[in-house]
Amino acid sequence: MKVLIIGGGGFVGSKLARVLAGRGELRGAPIARLTLADLQAPAAIDAPFKVDCVAVDITDAAATRALIGAGYDVIYHLAAIVSGQAEAEFDLGMQVNLFGSLNVFEAARALGTAPVVVYTSSIAVYGGETPDPIEDWSHQNPQTSYGAQKAAGELFLSDYSRKGFIDGRGLRLPTISIRPGKPNKAASSFMSSIFREPLQGRSAVCPVDPEYAHWFLSPRRCVENLVIAAELPAEAWGLNRCLALPGRTYRIGEMVEAMRRVAGDAAADRIEWRPDAEIKKIVLGWKAEFNPLKALSLGFVRDDSFEDNVRFFLADDIVT
Amino acid sequence: MKVLIIGGGGFVGSKLARVLAGRGELRGAPIARLTLADLQAPAAIDAPFKVDCVAVDITDAAATRALIGAGYDVIYHLAAIVSGQAEAEFDLGMQVNLFGSLNVFEAARALGTAPVVVYTSSIAVYGGETPDPIEDWSHQNPQTSYGAQKAAGELFLSDYSRKGFIDGRGLRLPTISIRPGKPNKAASSFMSSIFREPLQGRSAVCPVDPEYAHWFLSPRRCVENLVIAAELPAEAWGLNRCLALPGRTYRIGEMVEAMRRVAGDAAADRIEWRPDAEIKKIVLGWKAEFNPLKALSLGFVRDDSFEDNVRFFLADDIVT
Repeated sequence: MKVLIIGGGGFVGSKLARVLAGRGELRGAPIARLTLADLQAPAAIDAPFKVDCVAVDITDAAATRALIGAGYDVIYHLAAIVSGQAEAEFDLGMQVNLFGSLNVFEAARALGTAPVVVYTSSIAVYGGETPDPIEDWSHQNPQTSYGAQKAAGELFLSDYSRKGFIDGRGLRLPTISIRPGKPNKAASSFMSSIFREPLQGRSAVCPVDPEYAHWFLSPRRCVENLVIAAELPAEAWGLNRCLALPGRTYRIGEMVEAMRRVAGDAAADRIEWRPDAEIKKIVLGWKAEFNPLKALSLGFVRDDSFEDNVRFFLADDIVT
Repeated sequence: MKVLIIGGGGFVGSKLARVLAGRGELRGAPIARLTLADLQAPAAIDAPFKVDCVAVDITDAAATRALIGAGYDVIYHLAAIVSGQAEAEFDLGMQVNLFGSLNVFEAARALGTAPVVVYTSSIAVYGGETPDPIEDWSHQNPQTSYGAQKAAGELFLSDYSRKGFIDGRGLRLPTISIRPGKPNKAASSFMSSIFREPLQGRSAVCPVDPEYAHWFLSPRRCVENLVIAAELPAEAWGLNRCLALPGRTYRIGEMVEAMRRVAGDAAADRIEWRPDAEIKKIVLGWKAEFNPLKALSLGFVRDDSFEDNVRFFLADDIVT
């Protein structure tokens, strides 16, 4: 079992790598080799199998083909230009999120072995004139360039799978919170930073009102779902290889109260509420109510409450 | 008012050109120039304005940019590799239907004037695990490569419009019947030929059962809708620039009876019923029941019954 994680230097990719190291196997076979690829070669991890760390730019078709051409059974394609940046740098978003993804799918197709390709899409594919809640058959109506690019990637993941070129599995990730690390250019970045920073004694700015509701999943459950996605039999997916992952709808104010219950008043009091019109414009176009029946029926998992998200962050991400 | 029709040599494009010639104006302004572009330069038409006929391959980004760079107010992008051929020649379908469409959108964006771009998509974007009827918010779940490519084009037409690069309007065409001319490589080709050929004294093969139901629109109403699409104000479209056109659901058997009522028994008796598994596999993946509320509310039109389709064909397409 040879596994490749493109975007292996990101926080989801590196958590996934550590989980695979802990498991030692995937799809019932021992992992012989794990390759972590990203724009900069990711840091190595301890694992009971060989780990390679390489730099690749997926907008370079030849480099992508050379990387994947080494042969993999499971390819995780997690690399993307995030929402805020794809909106500000339209052409870069198209190059990486659309053409880069097609380079990955084409290189996987060229193997001739129809490898498993797990692709992370996003709830940013939803928006606009769509009745709530989002059902498994709700249309992709993105209101950002990131969402449009991710939705197009989904279409081709499914079509390449239908053609037998790859064995694709696409997951529309809820907003992941509490995300470790530093703020990034995702418009949703604050949905982690207003917890992550206060939990470590620092202040943070919340650019939306406490009533703002959104759809969330913890990093721990996200990575569990990435493993489930690879392990499900191909026939379980049906006539569409992409689905919305389970999550939970929380209002920002509820989440702050959950943090208060787990970690006390001091953390909650470090949030400064300062509305930002630009961020609100993007995030108010996203959907908050989902009915992910297909994913739940396939065994994908979610948190019980936002207190889980706070506890998982403290357990998994705070180096003490 | 300068108008470009890419795919101007096809049957829809050439009918549209003749309708524009008859109108002499579009969007309230007299047409000064019409350019018909296709892989081979289309035949000239009589018109009260200048008509240029040029050859272009939209997979050639530079040629597409040179064509569009002359400057147009309204660009019709009707060119495509049809469903059966896109399924058989996957890479060609991707080159023309995805990358070619992106070349058109990019060249239109490069004008800097946000021209109107009318894009013909298809009900082939629907299929699979979607409840009937198809609503305006039903997901794009294509079961053909053609459908996936068209659906991706829709996503970018909407996103380029949201960004202000173009003023896009996308129409998901029902199956057009009765289509004049020769059979083509569309899996739906028989849905015209079983009427077109018998109405002209020739036999034709029907590869599906009389009970097969599908969603139809006549060429005449299709072209009227292409004009409406260009003329609607941008703000009428809302948060998604693509919609399913109105049509009618008919069973093949009903359509044959409608032909019998309009044109007599002789034509209907020229149909040979011979099921074809390959064609059934494709067309049974398409949806037949639609509820196109958005299009109807915007004033898009449909036929009253399939007798209309037969009469329009006899009036518009039979040269006597």
